[in-house]
Amino acid sequence: MSSAACDQLNSLMKGYTEVVDAALDLFLPAADAPPVPIHEAMRYSLFSGGKRLRPALVLMSCEMCGGDRSLALPAACAFEMIHAYSLIHDDLPAMDNDDCRRGRPTCHKAFNEAIAILAGDALLTHAFELLGKCSDGGRLVAEVAAAAGTNGMIGGQVADICSEHLPPDPELVEFIHSRKTAALIRQAVRSGAIIAGADDDDVARVTSFGEKIGLAFQIADDLLDVESTTEQLGKRAGKDAQRGKQTYPGVFGVEASRRKAAELVEQAKLCLQPFGENARNLCLLADFVIARKS
Amino acid sequence: MSSAACDQLNSLMKGYTEVVDAALDLFLPAADAPPVPIHEAMRYSLFSGGKRLRPALVLMSCEMCGGDRSLALPAACAFEMIHAYSLIHDDLPAMDNDDCRRGRPTCHKAFNEAIAILAGDALLTHAFELLGKCSDGGRLVAEVAAAAGTNGMIGGQVADICSEHLPPDPELVEFIHSRKTAALIRQAVRSGAIIAGADDDDVARVTSFGEKIGLAFQIADDLLDVESTTEQLGKRAGKDAQRGKQTYPGVFGVEASRRKAAELVEQAKLCLQPFGENARNLCLLADFVIARKS
Repeated sequence: MSSAACDQLNSLMKGYTEVVDAALDLFLPAADAPPVPIHEAMRYSLFSGGKRLRPALVLMSCEMCGGDRSLALPAACAFEMIHAYSLIHDDLPAMDNDDCRRGRPTCHKAFNEAIAILAGDALLTHAFELLGKCSDGGRLVAEVAAAAGTNGMIGGQVADICSEHLPPDPELVEFIHSRKTAALIRQAVRSGAIIAGADDDDVARVTSFGEKIGLAFQIADDLLDVESTTEQLGKRAGKDAQRGKQTYPGVFGVEASRRKAAELVEQAKLCLQPFGENARNLCLLADFVIARKS
Repeated sequence: MSSAACDQLNSLMKGYTEVVDAALDLFLPAADAPPVPIHEAMRYSLFSGGKRLRPALVLMSCEMCGGDRSLALPAACAFEMIHAYSLIHDDLPAMDNDDCRRGRPTCHKAFNEAIAILAGDALLTHAFELLGKCSDGGRLVAEVAAAAGTNGMIGGQVADICSEHLPPDPELVEFIHSRKTAALIRQAVRSGAIIAGADDDDVARVTSFGEKIGLAFQIADDLLDVESTTEQLGKRAGKDAQRGKQTYPGVFGVEASRRKAAELVEQAKLCLQPFGENARNLCLLADFVIARKS
Protein backbone atom coordinates (compact mmCIF):
# COMPACT_ATOMS: atom_id res chain seq x y z
CA MET A 1 0.00 0.00 0.00
CA SER A 2 1.20 3.52 -0.78
CA SER A 3 1.74 5.80 2.17
CA ALA A 4 -1.18 7.98 1.01
CA ALA A 5 -3.50 4.95 0.86
CA CYS A 6 -2.25 3.93 4.28
CA ASP A 7 -3.09 7.33 5.77
CA GLN A 8 -6.50 7.26 4.10
CA LEU A 9 -7.23 3.80 5.50
CA ASN A 10 -6.03 4.68 8.99
CA SER A 11 -8.29 7.68 9.17
CA LEU A 12 -11.19 5.66 7.74
CA MET A 13 -10.73 2.84 10.25
CA LYS A 14 -10.38 5.30 13.12
CA GLY A 15 -13.87 6.60 12.32
CA TYR A 16 -15.39 3.10 12.16
CA THR A 17 -13.61 1.99 15.33
CA GLU A 18 -15.01 4.93 17.28
CA VAL A 19 -18.55 4.19 16.15
CA VAL A 20 -18.20 0.47 16.88
CA ASP A 21 -16.60 0.99 20.29
CA ALA A 22 -19.38 3.32 21.36
CA ALA A 23 -22.00 0.81 20.17
CA LEU A 24 -20.27 -2.11 21.92
CA ASP A 25 -20.29 -0.14 25.15
CA LEU A 26 -24.00 0.51 24.70
CA PHE A 27 -24.97 -3.06 23.76
CA LEU A 28 -22.98 -4.82 26.50
CA PRO A 29 -24.28 -5.24 30.05
CA ALA A 30 -22.73 -2.61 32.34
CA ALA A 31 -19.40 -3.60 33.92
CA ASP A 32 -20.89 -3.19 37.40
CA ALA A 33 -24.04 -5.27 36.75
CA PRO A 34 -24.14 -8.49 38.80
CA PRO A 35 -22.50 -10.91 38.53
CA VAL A 36 -19.63 -8.44 38.06
CA PRO A 37 -16.69 -10.74 37.11
CA ILE A 38 -18.30 -12.02 33.90
CA HIS A 39 -19.16 -8.53 32.67
CA GLU A 40 -15.65 -7.30 33.50
CA ALA A 41 -14.13 -10.23 31.60
CA MET A 42 -16.36 -9.68 28.55
CA ARG A 43 -15.35 -6.03 28.41
CA TYR A 44 -11.68 -6.79 29.12
CA SER A 45 -11.52 -8.99 26.03
CA LEU A 46 -13.65 -6.79 23.79
CA PHE A 47 -11.88 -3.54 24.60
CA SER A 48 -8.30 -4.59 24.06
CA GLY A 49 -7.35 -2.74 20.91
CA GLY A 50 -8.84 -5.06 18.27
CA LYS A 51 -8.77 -3.84 14.68
CA ARG A 52 -12.62 -4.02 14.44
CA LEU A 53 -12.17 -5.49 10.98
CA ARG A 54 -15.36 -7.61 11.04
CA PRO A 55 -17.65 -4.79 12.25
CA ALA A 56 -16.14 -2.44 9.66
CA LEU A 57 -16.88 -5.04 6.97
CA VAL A 58 -20.53 -5.28 8.08
CA LEU A 59 -20.96 -1.50 8.12
CA MET A 60 -19.11 -0.81 4.85
CA SER A 61 -21.01 -3.55 3.04
CA CYS A 62 -24.33 -2.22 4.30
CA GLU A 63 -23.43 1.31 3.21
CA MET A 64 -22.16 0.17 -0.20
CA CYS A 65 -25.53 -1.53 -0.79
CA GLY A 66 -27.39 1.66 0.08
CA GLY A 67 -28.37 0.72 3.64
CA ASP A 68 -28.35 2.93 6.72
CA ARG A 69 -25.27 2.27 8.82
CA SER A 70 -27.18 2.54 12.09
CA LEU A 71 -29.34 -0.48 11.17
CA ALA A 72 -26.21 -2.60 10.81
CA LEU A 73 -24.57 -1.55 14.09
CA PRO A 74 -26.03 -4.34 16.29
CA ALA A 75 -24.92 -6.97 13.76
CA ALA A 76 -21.51 -5.31 13.44
CA CYS A 77 -21.06 -5.57 17.22
CA ALA A 78 -22.29 -9.17 17.18
CA PHE A 79 -19.48 -10.14 14.80
CA GLU A 80 -16.88 -8.55 17.07
CA MET A 81 -18.34 -10.45 20.04
CA ILE A 82 -18.16 -13.76 18.15
CA HIS A 83 -14.58 -12.97 17.17
CA ALA A 84 -13.69 -12.12 20.79
CA TYR A 85 -15.33 -15.32 22.11
CA SER A 86 -13.34 -17.42 19.64
CA LEU A 87 -10.07 -15.80 20.73
CA ILE A 88 -10.82 -16.29 24.44
CA HIS A 89 -11.55 -20.00 23.96
CA ASP A 90 -8.63 -20.51 21.52
CA ASP A 91 -6.21 -19.02 24.06
CA LEU A 92 -7.25 -21.44 26.86
CA PRO A 93 -4.63 -23.86 28.24
CA ALA A 94 -6.50 -26.83 26.73
CA MET A 95 -6.35 -25.19 23.30
CA ASP A 96 -3.48 -22.92 22.15
CA ASN A 97 -2.38 -22.13 25.73
CA ASP A 98 -1.44 -18.51 25.09
CA ASP A 99 -0.65 -16.07 27.90
CA CYS A 100 -0.52 -12.95 25.78
CA ARG A 101 -2.89 -11.36 23.25
CA ARG A 102 -2.65 -7.83 21.84
CA GLY A 103 0.21 -7.16 24.26
CA ARG A 104 -1.89 -7.97 27.37
CA PRO A 105 -2.55 -11.08 29.48
CA THR A 106 -5.18 -13.34 27.87
CA CYS A 107 -8.60 -13.50 29.54
CA HIS A 108 -7.90 -16.67 31.57
CA LYS A 109 -4.65 -15.10 32.82
CA ALA A 110 -6.27 -11.80 33.77
CA PHE A 111 -9.24 -13.56 35.45
CA ASN A 112 -9.28 -17.37 35.65
CA GLU A 113 -10.15 -20.28 33.41
CA ALA A 114 -13.73 -20.69 34.60
CA ILE A 115 -14.54 -17.02 34.02
CA ALA A 116 -12.78 -17.11 30.63
CA ILE A 117 -14.83 -20.09 29.45
CA LEU A 118 -18.05 -18.45 30.63
CA ALA A 119 -17.10 -15.02 29.22
CA GLY A 120 -16.63 -16.67 25.81
CA ASP A 121 -19.98 -18.43 26.14
CA ALA A 122 -21.62 -15.17 27.17
CA LEU A 123 -20.17 -13.17 24.25
CA LEU A 124 -21.42 -15.79 21.79
CA THR A 125 -24.85 -15.82 23.42
CA HIS A 126 -25.06 -12.03 23.52
CA ALA A 127 -24.06 -11.83 19.86
CA PHE A 128 -27.06 -13.96 18.90
CA GLU A 129 -29.34 -11.86 21.08
CA LEU A 130 -28.25 -8.76 19.13
CA LEU A 131 -28.61 -10.51 15.76
CA GLY A 132 -32.04 -11.88 16.69
CA LYS A 133 -33.28 -8.35 17.35
CA CYS A 134 -32.33 -7.15 13.84
CA SER A 135 -35.04 -7.02 11.20
CA ASP A 136 -34.98 -10.38 9.40
CA GLY A 137 -33.18 -11.56 12.56
CA GLY A 138 -34.07 -15.21 12.08
CA ARG A 139 -32.29 -15.41 8.73
CA LEU A 140 -29.26 -13.50 10.00
CA VAL A 141 -28.93 -15.74 13.05
CA ALA A 142 -29.27 -18.95 11.03
CA GLU A 143 -26.61 -17.83 8.53
CA VAL A 144 -24.17 -16.52 11.13
CA ALA A 145 -24.59 -19.65 13.26
CA ALA A 146 -23.82 -21.81 10.22
CA ALA A 147 -20.69 -19.73 9.53
CA ALA A 148 -19.58 -19.97 13.17
CA GLY A 149 -20.43 -23.66 13.66
CA THR A 150 -18.86 -27.01 12.83
CA ASN A 151 -19.09 -26.40 9.09
CA GLY A 152 -17.44 -23.01 9.61
CA MET A 153 -15.28 -21.46 12.30
CA ILE A 154 -15.50 -24.22 14.92
CA GLY A 155 -14.95 -26.90 12.27
CA GLY A 156 -11.82 -25.06 11.12
CA GLN A 157 -10.53 -24.80 14.67
CA VAL A 158 -11.11 -28.54 15.31
CA ALA A 159 -9.37 -29.49 12.06
CA ASP A 160 -6.54 -27.11 12.98
CA ILE A 161 -6.02 -28.78 16.37
CA CYS A 162 -6.39 -32.31 15.01
CA SER A 163 -3.85 -31.84 12.22
CA GLU A 164 -0.98 -30.45 14.28
CA HIS A 165 2.32 -32.17 13.44
CA LEU A 166 0.86 -33.90 10.36
CA PRO A 167 2.89 -33.55 7.14
CA PRO A 168 2.02 -30.35 5.19
CA ASP A 169 -1.12 -31.09 3.19
CA PRO A 170 -2.61 -28.68 0.60
CA GLU A 171 -6.16 -30.05 0.93
CA LEU A 172 -6.05 -29.89 4.70
CA VAL A 173 -4.79 -26.32 4.81
CA GLU A 174 -7.56 -25.27 2.38
CA PHE A 175 -10.17 -27.04 4.57
CA ILE A 176 -8.90 -25.30 7.70
CA HIS A 177 -8.38 -21.82 6.27
CA SER A 178 -11.68 -21.60 4.42
CA ARG A 179 -13.42 -22.33 7.71
CA LYS A 180 -11.33 -21.04 10.62
CA THR A 181 -11.20 -17.40 9.53
CA ALA A 182 -12.76 -16.97 6.10
CA ALA A 183 -16.27 -18.27 6.95
CA LEU A 184 -16.97 -15.55 9.52
CA ILE A 185 -15.36 -12.75 7.46
CA ARG A 186 -17.43 -13.79 4.43
CA GLN A 187 -20.55 -13.83 6.60
CA ALA A 188 -19.78 -10.38 8.03
CA VAL A 189 -19.73 -8.77 4.57
CA ARG A 190 -22.76 -10.81 3.50
CA SER A 191 -24.76 -9.80 6.58
CA GLY A 192 -24.19 -6.10 5.88
CA ALA A 193 -25.66 -6.54 2.40
CA ILE A 194 -28.65 -8.50 3.73
CA ILE A 195 -29.36 -5.80 6.32
CA ALA A 196 -29.24 -3.19 3.54
CA GLY A 197 -31.92 -5.17 1.69
CA ALA A 198 -29.61 -5.92 -1.26
CA ASP A 199 -30.96 -8.20 -4.01
CA ASP A 200 -29.70 -11.76 -4.42
CA ASP A 201 -27.16 -10.84 -7.12
CA ASP A 202 -25.55 -8.17 -4.97
CA VAL A 203 -25.56 -10.45 -1.91
CA ALA A 204 -23.77 -13.09 -4.02
CA ARG A 205 -21.16 -10.55 -5.24
CA VAL A 206 -20.46 -9.37 -1.75
CA THR A 207 -20.29 -12.95 -0.44
CA SER A 208 -17.70 -13.81 -3.06
CA PHE A 209 -15.69 -10.72 -2.10
CA GLY A 210 -15.84 -11.79 1.57
CA GLU A 211 -14.77 -15.34 0.83
CA LYS A 212 -11.66 -14.14 -0.99
CA ILE A 213 -10.51 -11.51 1.49
CA GLY A 214 -11.23 -13.96 4.33
CA LEU A 215 -8.84 -16.48 2.85
CA ALA A 216 -6.30 -13.74 2.07
CA PHE A 217 -6.55 -12.59 5.70
CA GLN A 218 -5.64 -16.04 7.03
CA ILE A 219 -2.73 -16.41 4.59
CA ALA A 220 -1.48 -12.98 5.72
CA ASP A 221 -1.83 -14.16 9.33
CA ASP A 222 0.32 -17.21 8.57
CA LEU A 223 2.93 -14.98 6.90
CA LEU A 224 2.98 -12.56 9.86
CA ASP A 225 3.59 -15.49 12.22
CA VAL A 226 6.66 -16.45 10.16
CA GLU A 227 8.03 -12.99 9.51
CA SER A 228 7.26 -10.84 12.56
CA THR A 229 8.48 -10.57 16.12
CA THR A 230 6.34 -11.17 19.20
CA GLU A 231 6.63 -7.46 19.98
CA GLN A 232 5.26 -6.43 16.59
CA LEU A 233 2.35 -8.88 16.80
CA GLY A 234 1.34 -8.37 20.43
CA LYS A 235 1.10 -12.16 20.61
CA ARG A 236 3.64 -14.97 20.43
CA ALA A 237 5.31 -15.14 16.96
CA GLY A 238 6.58 -18.31 15.34
CA LYS A 239 4.07 -20.47 17.18
CA ASP A 240 2.58 -22.07 14.07
CA ALA A 241 5.85 -23.82 13.20
CA GLN A 242 6.44 -24.67 16.84
CA ARG A 243 3.04 -26.40 17.10
CA GLY A 244 3.35 -28.05 13.69
CA LYS A 245 0.30 -26.19 12.33
CA GLN A 246 -0.90 -26.53 8.76
CA THR A 247 -0.11 -23.13 7.22
CA TYR A 248 -0.02 -21.67 3.74
CA PRO A 249 3.71 -20.82 3.83
CA GLY A 250 4.36 -24.25 5.36
CA VAL A 251 2.58 -26.01 2.49
CA PHE A 252 3.21 -23.71 -0.48
CA GLY A 253 6.23 -21.63 0.61
CA VAL A 254 6.45 -17.93 1.54
CA GLU A 255 6.67 -16.49 -1.96
CA ALA A 256 3.76 -18.50 -3.39
CA SER A 257 1.67 -17.60 -0.33
CA ARG A 258 2.34 -13.90 -0.83
CA ARG A 259 1.35 -14.16 -4.48
CA LYS A 260 -1.80 -16.12 -3.62
CA ALA A 261 -2.90 -13.55 -1.04
CA ALA A 262 -2.31 -10.67 -3.48
CA GLU A 263 -4.24 -12.50 -6.23
CA LEU A 264 -7.17 -13.15 -3.90
CA VAL A 265 -7.38 -9.47 -2.98
CA GLU A 266 -7.35 -8.44 -6.66
CA GLN A 267 -10.06 -11.00 -7.47
CA ALA A 268 -12.06 -9.80 -4.46
CA LYS A 269 -11.98 -6.21 -5.67
CA LEU A 270 -13.13 -7.30 -9.14
CA CYS A 271 -16.28 -8.81 -7.53
CA LEU A 272 -17.25 -5.30 -6.43
CA GLN A 273 -16.81 -3.54 -9.80
CA PRO A 274 -20.59 -3.27 -10.34
CA PHE A 275 -20.79 -1.07 -7.23
CA GLY A 276 -18.41 1.48 -8.77
CA GLU A 277 -17.24 4.31 -6.53
CA ASN A 278 -19.44 3.00 -3.66
CA ALA A 279 -17.02 0.09 -3.23
CA ARG A 280 -14.12 2.39 -2.41
CA ASN A 281 -14.01 1.71 1.35
CA LEU A 282 -14.28 -2.06 1.01
CA CYS A 283 -11.52 -2.06 -1.63
CA LEU A 284 -9.25 -0.04 0.66
CA LEU A 285 -9.95 -2.52 3.44
CA ALA A 286 -9.18 -5.43 1.11
CA ASP A 287 -5.72 -3.96 0.48
CA PHE A 288 -5.21 -3.54 4.21
CA VAL A 289 -5.94 -7.24 4.83
CA ILE A 290 -2.58 -8.20 3.33
CA ALA A 291 -0.65 -4.98 4.02
CA ARG A 292 -1.19 -4.98 7.80
CA LYS A 293 1.71 -5.46 10.21
CA SER A 294 -0.20 -7.19 13.03
CA MET B 1 -46.86 -39.12 42.94
CA SER B 2 -49.20 -42.12 42.93
CA SER B 3 -47.95 -45.23 41.19
CA ALA B 4 -50.69 -44.84 38.54
CA ALA B 5 -49.61 -41.24 37.86
CA CYS B 6 -46.04 -42.43 37.70
CA ASP B 7 -46.87 -45.07 35.07
CA GLN B 8 -48.86 -42.52 33.09
CA LEU B 9 -45.99 -40.05 33.15
CA ASN B 10 -43.39 -42.66 32.21
CA SER B 11 -45.34 -43.73 29.18
CA LEU B 12 -45.99 -40.10 28.24
CA MET B 13 -42.31 -39.17 28.53
CA LYS B 14 -41.26 -42.27 26.58
CA GLY B 15 -43.32 -41.02 23.66
CA TYR B 16 -41.84 -37.51 23.79
CA THR B 17 -38.31 -38.83 24.20
CA GLU B 18 -38.61 -40.98 21.10
CA VAL B 19 -39.84 -38.06 19.02
CA VAL B 20 -37.13 -35.74 20.36
CA ASP B 21 -34.32 -38.27 19.91
CA ALA B 22 -35.30 -38.90 16.29
CA ALA B 23 -35.42 -35.14 15.64
CA LEU B 24 -32.05 -34.54 17.34
CA ASP B 25 -30.51 -37.21 15.14
CA LEU B 26 -31.97 -35.49 12.09
CA PHE B 27 -31.00 -31.94 13.06
CA LEU B 28 -27.40 -32.72 14.08
CA PRO B 29 -24.54 -32.99 11.59
CA ALA B 30 -23.82 -36.67 10.81
CA ALA B 31 -21.32 -38.34 13.15
CA ASP B 32 -19.02 -39.14 10.23
CA ALA B 33 -19.04 -35.60 8.73
CA PRO B 34 -15.63 -33.89 8.92
CA PRO B 35 -14.17 -32.91 11.28
CA VAL B 36 -15.34 -36.15 12.91
CA PRO B 37 -14.25 -35.69 16.57
CA ILE B 38 -16.47 -32.66 17.19
CA HIS B 39 -19.56 -34.35 15.77
CA GLU B 40 -18.87 -37.50 17.78
CA ALA B 41 -18.50 -35.44 20.95
CA MET B 42 -21.71 -33.49 20.32
CA ARG B 43 -23.63 -36.73 19.86
CA TYR B 44 -21.91 -38.43 22.80
CA SER B 45 -23.17 -35.73 25.14
CA LEU B 46 -26.62 -35.37 23.61
CA PHE B 47 -27.40 -39.09 23.48
CA SER B 48 -26.55 -40.06 27.02
CA GLY B 49 -29.93 -40.80 28.53
CA GLY B 50 -31.08 -37.28 29.37
CA LYS B 51 -34.66 -36.88 30.59
CA ARG B 52 -35.52 -34.55 27.65
CA LEU B 53 -37.42 -32.39 30.14
CA ARG B 54 -36.85 -29.09 28.31
CA PRO B 55 -37.88 -30.39 24.86
CA ALA B 56 -40.97 -32.01 26.37
CA LEU B 57 -41.88 -28.67 27.96
CA VAL B 58 -41.57 -26.90 24.60
CA LEU B 59 -43.71 -29.49 22.82
CA MET B 60 -46.37 -29.82 25.54
CA SER B 61 -46.70 -26.05 25.84
CA CYS B 62 -47.06 -25.69 22.07
CA GLU B 63 -49.73 -28.43 22.00
CA MET B 64 -51.61 -26.99 24.99
CA CYS B 65 -51.82 -23.65 23.16
CA GLY B 66 -53.25 -25.34 20.07
CA GLY B 67 -50.05 -25.43 18.01
CA ASP B 68 -48.76 -28.23 15.80
CA ARG B 69 -46.07 -30.23 17.59
CA SER B 70 -43.94 -30.58 14.47
CA LEU B 71 -43.48 -26.78 14.26
CA ALA B 72 -41.97 -26.79 17.74
CA LEU B 73 -39.55 -29.69 17.21
CA PRO B 74 -36.54 -27.61 16.06
CA ALA B 75 -36.91 -25.32 19.08
CA ALA B 76 -37.40 -28.33 21.38
CA CYS B 77 -34.11 -29.78 20.13
CA ALA B 78 -32.40 -26.39 20.48
CA PHE B 79 -33.24 -26.34 24.21
CA GLU B 80 -31.75 -29.80 24.69
CA MET B 81 -28.59 -28.67 22.86
CA ILE B 82 -28.27 -25.60 25.09
CA HIS B 83 -28.78 -27.79 28.14
CA ALA B 84 -26.13 -30.25 26.91
CA TYR B 85 -23.64 -27.45 26.19
CA SER B 86 -24.09 -26.05 29.69
CA LEU B 87 -23.42 -29.47 31.24
CA ILE B 88 -20.29 -30.07 29.13
CA HIS B 89 -18.80 -26.72 30.14
CA ASP B 90 -19.91 -27.03 33.79
CA ASP B 91 -18.17 -30.40 34.06
CA LEU B 92 -14.79 -29.07 32.85
CA PRO B 93 -11.81 -29.21 35.24
CA ALA B 94 -11.77 -25.40 35.51
CA MET B 95 -15.43 -25.45 36.58
CA ASP B 96 -17.04 -28.28 38.61
CA ASN B 97 -14.36 -30.81 37.57
CA ASP B 98 -16.68 -33.80 37.27
CA ASP B 99 -15.57 -37.09 35.75
CA CYS B 100 -18.99 -38.71 35.64
CA ARG B 101 -22.38 -37.63 34.27
CA ARG B 102 -25.42 -39.89 33.79
CA GLY B 103 -23.26 -42.87 34.77
CA ARG B 104 -20.72 -42.28 31.97
CA PRO B 105 -17.43 -40.37 31.64
CA THR B 106 -18.01 -36.65 31.06
CA CYS B 107 -17.25 -35.26 27.59
CA HIS B 108 -13.73 -34.03 28.42
CA LYS B 109 -12.92 -37.45 29.92
CA ALA B 110 -14.29 -39.39 26.93
CA PHE B 111 -12.58 -37.05 24.43
CA ASN B 112 -10.31 -34.27 25.70
CA GLU B 113 -10.70 -30.78 27.11
CA ALA B 114 -10.23 -28.93 23.81
CA ILE B 115 -12.87 -31.02 22.05
CA ALA B 116 -15.22 -30.68 25.04
CA ILE B 117 -14.95 -26.87 25.04
CA LEU B 118 -15.55 -26.77 21.28
CA ALA B 119 -18.39 -29.33 21.41
CA GLY B 120 -20.14 -27.11 23.95
CA ASP B 121 -19.58 -24.06 21.74
CA ALA B 122 -20.88 -25.97 18.73
CA LEU B 123 -24.04 -27.18 20.47
CA LEU B 124 -24.86 -23.62 21.56
CA THR B 125 -24.20 -22.33 18.05
CA HIS B 126 -26.24 -25.08 16.43
CA ALA B 127 -29.13 -24.42 18.82
CA PHE B 128 -29.33 -20.83 17.62
CA GLU B 129 -29.19 -21.95 13.99
CA LEU B 130 -32.26 -24.14 14.61
CA LEU B 131 -34.09 -21.38 16.49
CA GLY B 132 -33.28 -18.83 13.81
CA LYS B 133 -34.92 -21.02 11.18
CA CYS B 134 -38.25 -21.14 13.09
CA SER B 135 -40.98 -18.75 12.04
CA ASP B 136 -40.59 -15.60 14.16
CA GLY B 137 -37.04 -16.90 14.63
CA GLY B 138 -35.56 -13.52 15.48
CA ARG B 139 -37.83 -13.08 18.51
CA LEU B 140 -37.24 -16.65 19.69
CA VAL B 141 -33.46 -16.28 19.41
CA ALA B 142 -33.41 -12.95 21.23
CA GLU B 143 -35.53 -14.33 24.11
CA VAL B 144 -33.65 -17.62 24.42
CA ALA B 145 -30.29 -15.84 24.29
CA ALA B 146 -31.41 -13.51 27.08
CA ALA B 147 -32.48 -16.53 29.17
CA ALA B 148 -29.18 -18.32 28.49
CA GLY B 149 -26.91 -15.27 28.95
CA THR B 150 -25.44 -13.31 31.84
CA ASN B 151 -28.84 -12.24 33.13
CA GLY B 152 -29.96 -15.90 32.98
CA MET B 153 -28.19 -19.25 32.95
CA ILE B 154 -24.59 -18.02 32.60
CA GLY B 155 -25.17 -15.34 35.24
CA GLY B 156 -26.47 -18.01 37.62
CA GLN B 157 -23.48 -20.22 36.96
CA VAL B 158 -21.03 -17.35 37.59
CA ALA B 159 -22.78 -16.38 40.83
CA ASP B 160 -22.78 -20.05 41.83
CA ILE B 161 -19.01 -20.37 41.34
CA CYS B 162 -18.24 -17.01 42.95
CA SER B 163 -20.26 -17.71 46.10
CA GLU B 164 -18.76 -21.09 46.99
CA HIS B 165 -17.84 -21.29 50.68
CA LEU B 166 -19.67 -18.06 51.52
CA PRO B 167 -22.09 -18.24 54.51
CA PRO B 168 -25.59 -19.45 53.49
CA ASP B 169 -27.45 -16.42 52.11
CA PRO B 170 -31.17 -16.43 51.18
CA GLU B 171 -30.86 -13.57 48.67
CA LEU B 172 -27.87 -15.16 46.99
CA VAL B 173 -29.49 -18.57 46.63
CA GLU B 174 -32.58 -16.94 45.09
CA PHE B 175 -30.37 -14.98 42.66
CA ILE B 176 -28.53 -18.14 41.62
CA HIS B 177 -31.52 -20.50 41.39
CA SER B 178 -33.78 -18.16 39.47
CA ARG B 179 -31.07 -17.89 36.83
CA LYS B 180 -29.00 -21.09 36.76
CA THR B 181 -31.87 -23.47 35.99
CA ALA B 182 -35.20 -21.66 36.12
CA ALA B 183 -34.48 -19.10 33.38
CA LEU B 184 -34.04 -21.70 30.64
CA ILE B 185 -36.93 -23.90 31.83
CA ARG B 186 -39.22 -20.87 31.90
CA GLN B 187 -38.08 -19.92 28.42
CA ALA B 188 -38.67 -23.47 27.12
CA VAL B 189 -42.34 -23.41 28.12
CA ARG B 190 -42.68 -19.82 26.89
CA SER B 191 -41.14 -20.63 23.51
CA GLY B 192 -43.63 -23.45 22.92
CA ALA B 193 -46.51 -21.03 23.46
CA ILE B 194 -44.96 -18.41 21.17
CA ILE B 195 -44.49 -20.98 18.41
CA ALA B 196 -48.15 -21.98 18.80
CA GLY B 197 -49.09 -18.36 18.20
CA ALA B 198 -50.60 -17.95 21.69
CA ASP B 199 -51.84 -14.49 22.67
CA ASP B 200 -49.94 -12.37 25.20
CA ASP B 201 -52.15 -13.45 28.14
CA ASP B 202 -51.54 -17.13 27.49
CA VAL B 203 -47.82 -16.56 26.95
CA ALA B 204 -47.73 -14.78 30.33
CA ARG B 205 -49.58 -17.65 32.07
CA VAL B 206 -47.26 -20.23 30.61
CA THR B 207 -44.21 -18.12 31.49
CA SER B 208 -45.34 -17.92 35.09
CA PHE B 209 -45.86 -21.71 35.14
CA GLY B 210 -42.33 -22.20 33.76
CA GLU B 211 -40.75 -19.84 36.27
CA LYS B 212 -42.26 -21.77 39.18
CA ILE B 213 -41.46 -25.28 38.02
CA GLY B 214 -37.96 -24.12 37.05
CA LEU B 215 -37.29 -23.00 40.60
CA ALA B 216 -38.93 -26.16 41.99
CA PHE B 217 -36.66 -28.21 39.72
CA GLN B 218 -33.50 -26.63 41.13
CA ILE B 219 -34.70 -27.04 44.72
CA ALA B 220 -35.41 -30.72 43.97
CA ASP B 221 -31.90 -30.98 42.50
CA ASP B 222 -30.41 -29.59 45.70
CA LEU B 223 -32.46 -32.09 47.74
CA LEU B 224 -31.38 -35.02 45.56
CA ASP B 225 -27.73 -34.04 46.05
CA VAL B 226 -28.23 -34.23 49.82
CA GLU B 227 -30.40 -37.34 49.96
CA SER B 228 -29.27 -39.65 47.12
CA THR B 229 -26.27 -41.83 46.42
CA THR B 230 -23.89 -41.34 43.51
CA GLU B 231 -25.23 -44.59 42.02
CA GLN B 232 -28.83 -43.34 42.07
CA LEU B 233 -27.90 -39.98 40.52
CA GLY B 234 -25.45 -41.18 37.88
CA LYS B 235 -23.27 -38.26 38.99
CA ARG B 236 -21.36 -37.47 42.16
CA ALA B 237 -23.72 -37.00 45.14
CA GLY B 238 -23.07 -34.71 48.11
CA LYS B 239 -20.88 -32.43 46.05
CA ASP B 240 -22.82 -29.24 46.85
CA ALA B 241 -21.92 -29.41 50.52
CA GLN B 242 -18.37 -30.45 49.70
CA ARG B 243 -17.89 -27.38 47.47
CA GLY B 244 -19.69 -25.07 49.87
CA LYS B 245 -22.42 -24.25 47.33
CA GLN B 246 -25.38 -22.01 48.09
CA THR B 247 -28.35 -24.41 48.16
CA TYR B 248 -31.95 -24.28 49.28
CA PRO B 249 -31.59 -26.99 51.93
CA GLY B 250 -28.34 -25.35 53.05
CA VAL B 251 -30.05 -22.00 53.56
CA PHE B 252 -33.61 -22.97 54.57
CA GLY B 253 -33.27 -26.60 55.76
CA VAL B 254 -34.49 -29.82 54.13
CA GLU B 255 -38.08 -29.74 55.35
CA ALA B 256 -38.72 -26.11 54.39
CA SER B 257 -37.15 -26.74 50.98
CA ARG B 258 -39.43 -29.72 50.36
CA ARG B 259 -42.47 -27.63 51.31
CA LYS B 260 -41.33 -24.75 49.10
CA ALA B 261 -40.87 -27.01 46.08
CA ALA B 262 -44.30 -28.60 46.58
CA GLU B 263 -45.92 -25.15 46.95
CA LEU B 264 -44.26 -23.91 43.77
CA VAL B 265 -45.59 -26.89 41.82
CA GLU B 266 -49.14 -26.31 43.12
CA GLN B 267 -48.92 -22.60 42.24
CA ALA B 268 -47.55 -23.51 38.82
CA LYS B 269 -50.48 -25.80 38.07
CA LEU B 270 -52.92 -23.06 39.12
CA CYS B 271 -51.44 -20.80 36.42
CA LEU B 272 -52.65 -23.31 33.82
CA GLN B 273 -56.27 -23.61 35.04
CA PRO B 274 -57.62 -21.52 32.13
CA PHE B 275 -56.34 -24.22 29.75
CA GLY B 276 -58.52 -26.87 31.42
CA GLU B 277 -58.01 -30.44 30.29
CA ASN B 278 -55.41 -29.33 27.70
CA ALA B 279 -52.98 -28.64 30.56
CA ARG B 280 -52.99 -32.28 31.67
CA ASN B 281 -49.56 -33.21 30.32
CA LEU B 282 -47.81 -30.11 31.65
CA CYS B 283 -49.41 -30.66 35.09
CA LEU B 284 -48.20 -34.27 35.15
CA LEU B 285 -44.72 -33.05 34.24
CA ALA B 286 -44.86 -30.43 36.99
CA ASP B 287 -45.47 -33.20 39.54
CA PHE B 288 -42.57 -35.18 38.12
CA VAL B 289 -40.19 -32.24 38.61
CA ILE B 290 -40.18 -32.79 42.37
CA ALA B 291 -41.00 -36.53 42.44
CA ARG B 292 -38.05 -37.64 40.27
CA LYS B 293 -35.27 -39.75 41.73
CA SER B 294 -32.39 -38.48 39.54
